[in-house]
Amino acid sequence: ARKDLTGLRKYLEPWLPTDLAPILVELPVEDLASIFRCAGRSLGAATFGYLPLVSQKKLLRLLSQEQAAALLNELPSDDRTAFIDSLPLDVAMQMLSLLSPEERKVAQALLAYPESSVGRMMTLDFIAVRPEWSVAEALDYIRENGYDRETLNVIYVIDEQGRLIDDVRVRRFLLAAPDRKVSDLMDGNVPHLAATDDRAHALDLFRKYDRIALPVADDGGKLIGIVTVDDILDVADAEATEDIQKLGGSEALDEPYITIALGRMVKKRASWLIVLFLGEMLTATAMTFFQGEIEKAVVLALFVPLVISSGGNAGSQAATLVIRAMALGEFTLGQWWRVMRRELAVGLALGLILGAVGFLRIAAWSMFSDVYGPHWLLVAETVGVSLVGIVLWGSLTGSMLPLILKRLGFDPATSSAPFVATLVDVTGLVIYFGVAYAFLSGVLL
Amino acid sequence: ARKDLTGLRKYLEPWLPTDLAPILVELPVEDLASIFRCAGRSLGAATFGYLPLVSQKKLLRLLSQEQAAALLNELPSDDRTAFIDSLPLDVAMQMLSLLSPEERKVAQALLAYPESSVGRMMTLDFIAVRPEWSVAEALDYIRENGYDRETLNVIYVIDEQGRLIDDVRVRRFLLAAPDRKVSDLMDGNVPHLAATDDRAHALDLFRKYDRIALPVADDGGKLIGIVTVDDILDVADAEATEDIQKLGGSEALDEPYITIALGRMVKKRASWLIVLFLGEMLTATAMTFFQGEIEKAVVLALFVPLVISSGGNAGSQAATLVIRAMALGEFTLGQWWRVMRRELAVGLALGLILGAVGFLRIAAWSMFSDVYGPHWLLVAETVGVSLVGIVLWGSLTGSMLPLILKRLGFDPATSSAPFVATLVDVTGLVIYFGVAYAFLSGVLL
Repeated sequence: ARKDLTGLRKYLEPWLPTDLAPILVELPVEDLASIFRCAGRSLGAATFGYLPLVSQKKLLRLLSQEQAAALLNELPSDDRTAFIDSLPLDVAMQMLSLLSPEERKVAQALLAYPESSVGRMMTLDFIAVRPEWSVAEALDYIRENGYDRETLNVIYVIDEQGRLIDDVRVRRFLLAAPDRKVSDLMDGNVPHLAATDDRAHALDLFRKYDRIALPVADDGGKLIGIVTVDDILDVADAEATEDIQKLGGSEALDEPYITIALGRMVKKRASWLIVLFLGEMLTATAMTFFQGEIEKAVVLALFVPLVISSGGNAGSQAATLVIRAMALGEFTLGQWWRVMRRELAVGLALGLILGAVGFLRIAAWSMFSDVYGPHWLLVAETVGVSLVGIVLWGSLTGSMLPLILKRLGFDPATSSAPFVATLVDVTGLVIYFGVAYAFLSGVLL
Repeated sequence: ARKDLTGLRKYLEPWLPTDLAPILVELPVEDLASIFRCAGRSLGAATFGYLPLVSQKKLLRLLSQEQAAALLNELPSDDRTAFIDSLPLDVAMQMLSLLSPEERKVAQALLAYPESSVGRMMTLDFIAVRPEWSVAEALDYIRENGYDRETLNVIYVIDEQGRLIDDVRVRRFLLAAPDRKVSDLMDGNVPHLAATDDRAHALDLFRKYDRIALPVADDGGKLIGIVTVDDILDVADAEATEDIQKLGGSEALDEPYITIALGRMVKKRASWLIVLFLGEMLTATAMTFFQGEIEKAVVLALFVPLVISSGGNAGSQAATLVIRAMALGEFTLGQWWRVMRRELAVGLALGLILGAVGFLRIAAWSMFSDVYGPHWLLVAETVGVSLVGIVLWGSLTGSMLPLILKRLGFDPATSSAPFVATLVDVTGLVIYFGVAYAFLSGVLL
């Protein structure tokens, strides 16, 4: 095997670590461990971040402590933060103890930032130059110091105190005459993040500015790290996943569905199901309240699921559309009346459509059978009219609830499809029996 | 105003168009038109792509035909494709007629690719060098030809027929000795797209390789364009939006919620609401079937919404989690049994939890009142047991339906929360009255 490894090392040599990494991750972890042992450290370090968490853990167990330490010290700081963050506290401490004093300080500083903050995902591997240098000097500096930096697509300009002055895309250095000053390339426009910013804010800035990387500055304006767009694609995926899972009526899993422990999955799903169940119990209470009406006209009970679920469906639609539009920054809270106006119009239209369908369905059935009794026309009117009200009400509730939650400082995605449906179910019953009373009082009731 | 414009032009000069664009888009369209008239064409071209569609259209109307033509000719090819694509056919044709013959050929070729294909989002502004050149020659070539290229972060290597050989990040050129050959920088690893690939496939490749740009090659291997990561972030957002909107039980809007015409929004939402309504009508049919039971024991009707909505909620959860996991590529169709095993376990656990809560709720109320009659214990048992069955059934349906839809070639996200809820409502009624019959037959029924 020794000979094989030498051959392998020779074979791997001309490849750039970041190009090799996506191919290597498809090998079994055991083979990876062999490759990591024989190949250069930088290959292992670049590959590690691409591996799923399970493989990362397994791989570290397969390496000797010395090899593991070498690997951890070599990892890009953002990948290392993400990895250590996902470990139980005791294992995380062991990992930290493997780091060199300097790297440990870096790792601890990054881990000290709040979860899902920019600090947790930033990397310290950037290149910064000074405004008074010439382009040729800057290029020499990049050539000497750039090899192990995560991105060289953007070069940062700092003053003597390390404060961020500007970011200049490397293309400008390439295109500029070598004797021009770095300050000639600057445009004075440098959107930047704070390490304590939420990652969702970083996502918004990337969406807005179409950048490849954004710098992170501390309170004093000092450049302390950068966030790169490949991590932002992960953030966009993670934020969408969180929203989607909440919209589906469960807590965000924070782990892949296919590998999360069953106990944790039950916990994340049960909590909302129980809340919804307790809410839905109000339907039983409401139904009890109308028990007398049901006894007199059982025909009313037949349409209860149909009528109230239509309100729930309309509400789910509205809530989902509004939540996604908010996540993408399509409108601000101040424009709530605009959303409400839209839902008033759309909800009314949808209600009239469903009401008509419902009325025609009951009328059609009653032409050929007497399943809905002699007063079928009144029943059909009751169902039709209450559908208009319930669908309109569902659309309004579904669209306004996310705005209200946001206003109160909660995550709008909490108003999930099932949550809105439950809320509308209860009020829908009241609307339905109210309309029934108006139409059928004196006849059936 | 003339004087102002000269001042403005002077003020804008040192700024790079792509840095200025995100700031300019916040100005009123009228001011933008003035700036576009006086500033260089490249500024207008870079800014245009950042504008929302409404402003783009308004802006073109404010410019003279000559100015509009200049702007359109100058636009990056991907931005232009996206803009023309969103216009009604007749306006699109007018726009095409404003282009120079060369640019028109480009635009028509890009527009000929299917919607949501890679061809529609690719740009032709890339830099390609030859493997036998030296690094110094390549850098000179980049300096001469690079200014108006969309990205210089990756340099492509092609042979004399224009076939793609490799992609090399520009950092390697920066870090290499000037007398080395371009071929020394190549690693032979060049993941690439076809112009007819779906944009979701491009998204997967970007997720996997963490690249800043990916090349697009035709059937003969010729390099025809590139796709950049900033457009991919838009694709990730758009794909997530589509999934979320479908999950919420409407068609994908394909336009921002806040600006889509109300008529189109009603159409997109009504279609699914009607389908769901027709499906939910089966509950009325099922209820009619059990009308006799309800007449004998009205108490059963009280819990109908509670019991069936719990199944719907569990189903929404399962469907949402499974659909998102599939979108992120967490598992393949072949692993359906693994998903099913998980949902069997989780669904049973959730069912037992809700069943217990439901049983206790009815028992507790009955301690202090006789609202549920003398046979409250049997009623509580009926509700508890049917909840176990319905929640389990909901979880299984919700998780398997997306897989079945995918297997049949449909979009899994079609099995929205409301869709699954409706499906489970009907079967839930059958389970509920079946259990009721087993427990209450001879007593209440």
